[in-house]
Amino acid sequence: MLEDREIGYLDPGIETLLERFFEKEGLYTTSSCIGRITIVEGIYPWDREEARVVFKKHGEIKGDIILKQVEIPGYENLWLRVTGPILHVVAKDRAWANWIIDLARKAGFKHSCIFSLGRDIVVEIMSSIQISIPLKIGGVLLIPYSHYDSLADLANKLWRKGVESARILEKLLEETPDP
Amino acid sequence: MLEDREIGYLDPGIETLLERFFEKEGLYTTSSCIGRITIVEGIYPWDREEARVVFKKHGEIKGDIILKQVEIPGYENLWLRVTGPILHVVAKDRAWANWIIDLARKAGFKHSCIFSLGRDIVVEIMSSIQISIPLKIGGVLLIPYSHYDSLADLANKLWRKGVESARILEKLLEETPDP
Repeated sequence: MLEDREIGYLDPGIETLLERFFEKEGLYTTSSCIGRITIVEGIYPWDREEARVVFKKHGEIKGDIILKQVEIPGYENLWLRVTGPILHVVAKDRAWANWIIDLARKAGFKHSCIFSLGRDIVVEIMSSIQISIPLKIGGVLLIPYSHYDSLADLANKLWRKGVESARILEKLLEETPDP
Repeated sequence: MLEDREIGYLDPGIETLLERFFEKEGLYTTSSCIGRITIVEGIYPWDREEARVVFKKHGEIKGDIILKQVEIPGYENLWLRVTGPILHVVAKDRAWANWIIDLARKAGFKHSCIFSLGRDIVVEIMSSIQISIPLKIGGVLLIPYSHYDSLADLANKLWRKGVESARILEKLLEETPDP
């Protein structure tokens, strides 16, 4: 983790949460994201193969960031996306898997579940924060420039909501006895 | 199922998919939704406790439906949402659970996972289609009326994409040998 931080792989804001996981003998994380605000080009913004991320930030944005991307010529379909934190956690056994899913849901990560059930139990911790706002569809601007500042405010508010859940989970991991 | 259809509980379009599930001895469905287009009032549109659905349809909409809701006075925050199909399926054992998750992901339900791992294995089949478009935020209209028809077209296209995945899963259930 320290190495990842050095290289810059680690999202700012997720470190203290990851530290709580490293203290648990029945769990370890394999990937993590504190949540992000992106601008995506494509018809289906959730589709990783078809859509293309043209702007990405693990933090808050300002209206002129949106403006700048929208003004780049050639983008037919452009979306502003906010996604909450996502973590993949390997659990030692069923008890640890159920324990962490329960805590995650309590913290607001309503979509937490077992992603893969093989030799390892991989738990996906995911919030319901998945907002895709169409900025431009078929070349037509849907939202006037004058609203970009409030759009940025909205995106920032939703992003902070995800970080808040991460902080709650951190606290729950600290306070809840092991399974 | 026939009884549910009689009462009108069953979404139109999901029946043929459910029939494929009923043919499998290792699986049964407990709840299902073919996907829907909703208009939701609230600050956090995904939050079932805080947000309130003011319009709901398991099918396509027209621009004037959006207009009608937006013109109702008193709504401070209004969102247009499109959510893809969601099914909960109980699997007899691990082999059936992994089998159905694999098929579901192939059909486009990328968020399929094990939702609960107790005496029963409950699998959640869910697509990545989760679009929330802010119509009105803090009383301010973000998208001009003139774009409501293309907004409805967009919502319909995303909704149909979900139905398409349901049809693919139907076919995969028919063609793939039991685990």
